[in-house]
Amino acid sequence: MRILHTGDWHIGRKMNGLDLLEDQEYILEQLFTYIDKEDIDLVVVAGDIFDRANPSQAALKLANDALVKINIELGKKLIIISGNHDSRERINYGSEWFKSTDFYINTDLDKVHEPVSIDDVDFYLIPHIDVLEARVYFEDESIESHEDAYQKIVEKISKVMNKDRTNIAVGHLYLSGSIESDSERPLSMGLSEAVSVDTFKDFDYTLLGHLHHPFAVNHDKAFYSGSLLKYSFSEVKQPKGFRLIDTSDKKVTFVPLTPKHDLVYHQGTFEDLVNREVTFEDKDAYYKFELSNMAGISEPMSKVRLLYPNTLELKPLIEEQNNDLKQIDISKVNDREIFEAFINQTLDREVTEFEFETFKNYFVGEDNETD
Amino acid sequence: MRILHTGDWHIGRKMNGLDLLEDQEYILEQLFTYIDKEDIDLVVVAGDIFDRANPSQAALKLANDALVKINIELGKKLIIISGNHDSRERINYGSEWFKSTDFYINTDLDKVHEPVSIDDVDFYLIPHIDVLEARVYFEDESIESHEDAYQKIVEKISKVMNKDRTNIAVGHLYLSGSIESDSERPLSMGLSEAVSVDTFKDFDYTLLGHLHHPFAVNHDKAFYSGSLLKYSFSEVKQPKGFRLIDTSDKKVTFVPLTPKHDLVYHQGTFEDLVNREVTFEDKDAYYKFELSNMAGISEPMSKVRLLYPNTLELKPLIEEQNNDLKQIDISKVNDREIFEAFINQTLDREVTEFEFETFKNYFVGEDNETD
Repeated sequence: MRILHTGDWHIGRKMNGLDLLEDQEYILEQLFTYIDKEDIDLVVVAGDIFDRANPSQAALKLANDALVKINIELGKKLIIISGNHDSRERINYGSEWFKSTDFYINTDLDKVHEPVSIDDVDFYLIPHIDVLEARVYFEDESIESHEDAYQKIVEKISKVMNKDRTNIAVGHLYLSGSIESDSERPLSMGLSEAVSVDTFKDFDYTLLGHLHHPFAVNHDKAFYSGSLLKYSFSEVKQPKGFRLIDTSDKKVTFVPLTPKHDLVYHQGTFEDLVNREVTFEDKDAYYKFELSNMAGISEPMSKVRLLYPNTLELKPLIEEQNNDLKQIDISKVNDREIFEAFINQTLDREVTEFEFETFKNYFVGEDNETD
Repeated sequence: MRILHTGDWHIGRKMNGLDLLEDQEYILEQLFTYIDKEDIDLVVVAGDIFDRANPSQAALKLANDALVKINIELGKKLIIISGNHDSRERINYGSEWFKSTDFYINTDLDKVHEPVSIDDVDFYLIPHIDVLEARVYFEDESIESHEDAYQKIVEKISKVMNKDRTNIAVGHLYLSGSIESDSERPLSMGLSEAVSVDTFKDFDYTLLGHLHHPFAVNHDKAFYSGSLLKYSFSEVKQPKGFRLIDTSDKKVTFVPLTPKHDLVYHQGTFEDLVNREVTFEDKDAYYKFELSNMAGISEPMSKVRLLYPNTLELKPLIEEQNNDLKQIDISKVNDREIFEAFINQTLDREVTEFEFETFKNYFVGEDNETD
């Protein structure tokens, strides 16, 4: 079976106020062309079809048109799960009818252990969930992290899984591929959502959405497709495209797509840019410039846009800033040291015992949760 | 063919801040029971499924559940058009798949002349439109009223209509049944949306939504189903239910439904109510009271709610007000007389010539349009 794995479409996304619907339509057309020409059997969209729970009418139309194209016009089987940006009810609307053309959506924890069986493959569709939801659903207060929650789900699936078939999990979560990032230390707030790659070890493939970098995890059985487009200037260096999984020869490849407008980030001086000392080939890209020596320049954005009309962001570059930041190995310092360094750096004074006690009480324990 | 005609569900509607989803679920259950028991072939929902373009997730779920119940679980054919409260893109989402189970939605002016043919009946699905839309669509600036717009649409349908078949129009509009209400006089603002019943004379039946009173028009071939529930205190005296059309014996009947909470409006004195001089059998109804002699009473709402917990509105009744309003026959007075009476009554003085000229210039001509 040849599976095209995509995700994080974020239909309706805006960037710096700019509507990206045309860019999304453009890149989806490329996806359709590929699906049509390359003999794909099944398309998997691993969550975040929409950018928000209440998408605009134009976003709804573009999404509907894309699904009609893939499933009805091109006649490809289709699997979708809900991501954290999607409204489950929105995504689920109409799903009873979609089944008639092998288009399967799951947004329901109650159904994660009911595989969608196509040929010799069982697909387990796991919608994005958070810790509180999992606690309520499993009636288990001991669930304290995404790791706990997803382990519970995989346990539930394991009980029914037929190992003689090819088993594929589809999820929308933050998978951590390395032991370090599993740290449960209180200050590692950003990591509390991380789910270890071991959780999914029983699956032949785990097709993921959530992280926008297609190579966020380097694993032979679990991978991200990456997002449809570069959705922030932190993603400028990320390739964008989709995954292709061939279950017969067990090959997994990443296929890049070319956006209507690329995203470019540049740091330099204002003079160099406007005097064309530095130039960029692609005049139509979306640019973010951080430029020094802009003080006293009137309407710098207008001047920059004469050269690059689609400049989205222009910021003064302050070069001295952050000079005293050092690379430190976070695993070798304790909470007290980190907190002291933080207060020292931001308030330029020492930490009091009272402050540290307050900090400890606040961050250690049940409150240490982010969504 | 036995057709159940309903409309104006307004799923997600609130009344005085109160969420009516439970009331809507309750009454829909009655509808399902009827559909199931009475051997209905087809259900028509004549617009305004939702109360607003961006329904809540709970509203989306209730609507989806209702459509699944009727079309998939009970296996009934289903026809829906968009009303003025619906978002066309929202209603249209998924419609390509719905066709597979004889569930047809039209939200598109381009398709009004493509009938849905079921047995010997052709259904023409006409979504709600406004004047500006019709002007753009037909590229005809001479369209100045809903009447003009719907005549254009019916013209388009008439060209393809097969008179040998039973032809049914489904629409969401303000149909006027009598010659008087077709008045094009400038002051008849509320009537500018009215479409004459003659517009639809070529159809065997015209099934309508928009007006909430099931007997808003008294005609043997065109009728409203009325809304699913009483949605404002101006509707207290209206029966609520659905229409049943039997095309074989040409019988059209109205079938009333019983809501979970009725709506009751009462005028009287505060003393009479709290001293139980007047009482109402149904303690659970939604009440609106306009009561005199409330001056000086502390927390009157709390006292009223001791008797009627679901009281939604409590207003002081000022009995002298409006005493000098007279019933007048609007067809016998001219614009000048109406305007003079208005200024006289509200400002307590005579109209100046300048004012009347301004009024005339403003209201006569192209500005006389409401949506």
